[in-house]
Amino acid sequence: MTSLLRFRTLKVVLKALVMTNEGVEITHLEKPKPARGEALLKVKTAGICNTDIEISRGYMGFQGTLGHEFVGSIVGFGPDTESLNFQIGDRVVSDINYACDACAWCHSGRRNHCPNRTVIGIVSHDGGMAEFVRAPVRNLYHVPPEISDDAATFIEPLAAAIHAFEGGVLEKDCRVAVIGDGKLGLLIAKALSLHLDQVSRAVLIGRHPQKMKIVNSLGLETLESKDVAGNEFDVVVEASGQPSGLALGLSLLRPRGRLVLKSTFAVQDTALDLSSVVVNELQVIGSRCGHFPAAIEALAKRKIDPTTLISHRYQLDDAIDAFETAQTKGTLKVLLEMHTKGD
Amino acid sequence: MTSLLRFRTLKVVLKALVMTNEGVEITHLEKPKPARGEALLKVKTAGICNTDIEISRGYMGFQGTLGHEFVGSIVGFGPDTESLNFQIGDRVVSDINYACDACAWCHSGRRNHCPNRTVIGIVSHDGGMAEFVRAPVRNLYHVPPEISDDAATFIEPLAAAIHAFEGGVLEKDCRVAVIGDGKLGLLIAKALSLHLDQVSRAVLIGRHPQKMKIVNSLGLETLESKDVAGNEFDVVVEASGQPSGLALGLSLLRPRGRLVLKSTFAVQDTALDLSSVVVNELQVIGSRCGHFPAAIEALAKRKIDPTTLISHRYQLDDAIDAFETAQTKGTLKVLLEMHTKGD
Repeated sequence: MTSLLRFRTLKVVLKALVMTNEGVEITHLEKPKPARGEALLKVKTAGICNTDIEISRGYMGFQGTLGHEFVGSIVGFGPDTESLNFQIGDRVVSDINYACDACAWCHSGRRNHCPNRTVIGIVSHDGGMAEFVRAPVRNLYHVPPEISDDAATFIEPLAAAIHAFEGGVLEKDCRVAVIGDGKLGLLIAKALSLHLDQVSRAVLIGRHPQKMKIVNSLGLETLESKDVAGNEFDVVVEASGQPSGLALGLSLLRPRGRLVLKSTFAVQDTALDLSSVVVNELQVIGSRCGHFPAAIEALAKRKIDPTTLISHRYQLDDAIDAFETAQTKGTLKVLLEMHTKGD
Repeated sequence: MTSLLRFRTLKVVLKALVMTNEGVEITHLEKPKPARGEALLKVKTAGICNTDIEISRGYMGFQGTLGHEFVGSIVGFGPDTESLNFQIGDRVVSDINYACDACAWCHSGRRNHCPNRTVIGIVSHDGGMAEFVRAPVRNLYHVPPEISDDAATFIEPLAAAIHAFEGGVLEKDCRVAVIGDGKLGLLIAKALSLHLDQVSRAVLIGRHPQKMKIVNSLGLETLESKDVAGNEFDVVVEASGQPSGLALGLSLLRPRGRLVLKSTFAVQDTALDLSSVVVNELQVIGSRCGHFPAAIEALAKRKIDPTTLISHRYQLDDAIDAFETAQTKGTLKVLLEMHTKGD
């Protein structure tokens, strides 16, 4: 008895939002100890993403602390860890792909596809919906003072949104449509606004004029999906996550057009009219995580303001309610704050 | 009565294999008159393609003379037609995409995607499984004497096979697999043999070792689909036309890999694991018709011998039997001869 009690007394605990066999719950865990090469971050704010919601329903079979969109400050380093250009107290964000840095993929600069990687908050590594999180120092990026904590929480999804248009997807004077007016679609529309000098048409297609007006001031057209017949695009980004959005995307493409898929469709097998893909020589391009520096630059230079997407804000203690709200129709980004002010 | 009889006597007829509401039949039609810009070809040989078989089952809703793989010789030109560098008697093949030559697509050199096009033997233009066919002079290509009639019949499908590897699909030292050991897969494997100096692995995956051995002498590996577990490729060309081939193709790709679709899947909506497309950032690339000059050069320089794929040969009168045979398991290319020797 005595030794067990002693152990309990010594254990340093933290609060976290955890996915278990029973579903999502707030629980106390042992405070993580950063391993070699890792830093320990005190998390300030985290965002709830549709992927988190899918994970809470069983996607990826993940068990552990949720959260892959977060900003925090460094409170420690693992043993024998090169701190690179980071110091205790620095405000940082972390790329979520925790690569092995030893394989051919990592050596060729494609760490996001390292076959040995874990993914913070998604695959075998506790995420940032907790008071503390450990992350590899190599994955960290400084957050410049021009970027607020709220805006910094969007660095991960904004990098992914910007990535939709990387890799030669856009050609000069091409016509581009983004399908979906949820938080992902709106963020991708904001990323598209970075390319308005290059494209001849930039359209957001959705179902909710009220949501879409967020991007009208950026110079994008908005179109309701029921009114798109007759429109043709060279590039369509599918961000609705719905099979109907996928079918619409294919139907709106001109021959040789490119459909960029940004949603991890929870439906395992989604039906696709592949005959049109062959006959019109379409390309369907999967696009996942992006590069943090591009997002940090866009935010620091105030080219994009993602904070207009924030619709709710909760304390970690109320994270279960936050998840409920995030799944409510019409909700955009829900932020979680990990510490009460001055904590 | 008299006038009808007179009409029947004067009408010049030709035999053709025609798709009607009742199915495929051999019938007599009025001999086609080339329009302005067209030549009339006396067809020598035509090949039966899987697309013809699909059309005979209702695909594309086509009605008219079948046949888009054919070689013939020029016997006339339409009124006021510029004959370009062609003369009566020239042995030619014809690109099947009959473009309008007036729209933006045509002017930008992408006539194969002209939205106003007809397609010989497939969309609103009688094909080459007939004694005569009319074709636009702009679509014709001379067949050099080094290429036999049999080999020339493969120019259209070979151009399509070569096209699978065009447009930056191959990177240096990439590993490439072709799925499907039917006539399309084997022809694509032959096209892949043109790139052996550039790729680090070239594999044909099929189910019939007997068929696949046709490409062993070309330096390609062959693998039975049941034995592919653990293999990874940068590029996979799907040429089986089966949903199982599609799923196999996706599963064999490394992250950032490219799946080239060559089969017009007759199934309207084919299920696809799009989650893996997003997570692994795969590209699914539709590929249809190719460029005749590339195929003509490969044949004239004897870099490829497609005639090893010929398994049967029929006269036009026996075309219904030929279609039966073409649908029999194990059959490769079936050729139709349009005229008896000396005809």
